[in-house]
Amino acid sequence: MMITSTSNSKIKQIRQIQDKKQQKKSNLFYMEGLRIIGEAYKTENLLETLIFCPELLKSEYGNQLIEQGKQTGLEILEVSESVFKSFSMKENPQGIAAIGIKKEYHLDDLNTKKGIIVALTEIADPGNLGTIIRTSDAVDANGIVLLGDSVNPYESGSVRGSMGALFSQKIIQTDFETFLAWKNEKKIKMVGTSDHTETDYLEISYPNPIILLMGSERQGLTREQIDSCDFMARIPMLRSSDSLNLAVATGIMLYQIYNCHRGYVLTSEKGNA
Amino acid sequence: MMITSTSNSKIKQIRQIQDKKQQKKSNLFYMEGLRIIGEAYKTENLLETLIFCPELLKSEYGNQLIEQGKQTGLEILEVSESVFKSFSMKENPQGIAAIGIKKEYHLDDLNTKKGIIVALTEIADPGNLGTIIRTSDAVDANGIVLLGDSVNPYESGSVRGSMGALFSQKIIQTDFETFLAWKNEKKIKMVGTSDHTETDYLEISYPNPIILLMGSERQGLTREQIDSCDFMARIPMLRSSDSLNLAVATGIMLYQIYNCHRGYVLTSEKGNA
Repeated sequence: MMITSTSNSKIKQIRQIQDKKQQKKSNLFYMEGLRIIGEAYKTENLLETLIFCPELLKSEYGNQLIEQGKQTGLEILEVSESVFKSFSMKENPQGIAAIGIKKEYHLDDLNTKKGIIVALTEIADPGNLGTIIRTSDAVDANGIVLLGDSVNPYESGSVRGSMGALFSQKIIQTDFETFLAWKNEKKIKMVGTSDHTETDYLEISYPNPIILLMGSERQGLTREQIDSCDFMARIPMLRSSDSLNLAVATGIMLYQIYNCHRGYVLTSEKGNA
Repeated sequence: MMITSTSNSKIKQIRQIQDKKQQKKSNLFYMEGLRIIGEAYKTENLLETLIFCPELLKSEYGNQLIEQGKQTGLEILEVSESVFKSFSMKENPQGIAAIGIKKEYHLDDLNTKKGIIVALTEIADPGNLGTIIRTSDAVDANGIVLLGDSVNPYESGSVRGSMGALFSQKIIQTDFETFLAWKNEKKIKMVGTSDHTETDYLEISYPNPIILLMGSERQGLTREQIDSCDFMARIPMLRSSDSLNLAVATGIMLYQIYNCHRGYVLTSEKGNA
């Protein structure tokens, strides 16, 4: 039966988990669009409810997803166009959305034998966070640790930006002190970045495993955070630039570490760069 | 005299240049916030009008900017809090905004002797574009060419994302055919990226000057665009990832090219990546 009223309890629930404040407290989250829901299918026990609007869902792939959902016994809601548009976050909705179940991870769930762990201090922008989760997945990172007062990774901008990588990356939320004690106990080396450090990021031989610690958009790393790093790297910048977008800087560092781990070394011909 | 009415003609003009459709046609654009306006001061003939709200502008630096504007004879509007909030694009406005004058550049304004030129095909996301402009500035690129149906670089998300780099980078809008004819005439080598190409982006010795051609968020480079490149590079990705955020991928490529130009060469690899 098609839901045609926005006061339906399930529709109310969708709006609730879309709300920034209520989102944090919920164990559910909202996602929308063909690509991300296609990705969500690949993860077990992730989808709670699938929502579609037959008038809007023109894609054959989308209709396959609905069929597949029916066969696996997923709760499926059929809604009218006006109901779908009442909660849709896209300008041109594709007519498919879902409610997912959050997964909770702890520091001890992280592989500490090899690979890259990304740690972000007080990241504020959901788009940046989603993009970093996406890049972390591309270099097969072990997980992402959100330190302090971080944006909620299940906020819509982050879910969208992650392009589904949110489902396969382990996301952990903790405070810096707990994290630092854990890092020291596990004896994992940590690299941070700063504009004020001397060593060019290309000149470092990145150990494996490693933690990449990135500061917030607003203020970078604090003195205490810099002091807790085993080494610091500087991404050089020309002209009057003194910083890069956080997701771009993290991407450049992640790829440099990954390149190092896969055996590539770049050396300066000129002796000094 | 303080403007207290949102129907003031200058306030109406602000809302007009904020509107996506009308923005394209205007030779003016809107910017907001301390950092970006501080950057705007560094560029000659950029600022047309400065707008501030004394109740909101608490920063000493902000008040210095206003003083400086007064001394240089800039048009300055003082507005009430409710008027400022009527056009502000920030959640917590800093109480300073400005109208800037667009600069128009053509392909022939670009340095073609050395350095990096960034070309983007049908980029759709203003945040991505602003971020790419910011990264381009950090590697001292010669300019950015927007090909085909691109997002407007003066849309608010792009202005904000560029962090002022929009003022120092040359932005050119043209179509792919004109651009390709110009590239061939100037005999500049061009590198594109694709998921389906064999050569790892680290294995390429990037010539100087060079054009970096990046495809759209939605579909990457077309067959024709790939064929017009002198060589193609692949950024490797693990797990199920088949793409990176466009601004991140562009950042990784720009830094690899820049690293190559500043004299870093690949000296070792373990045979297979």
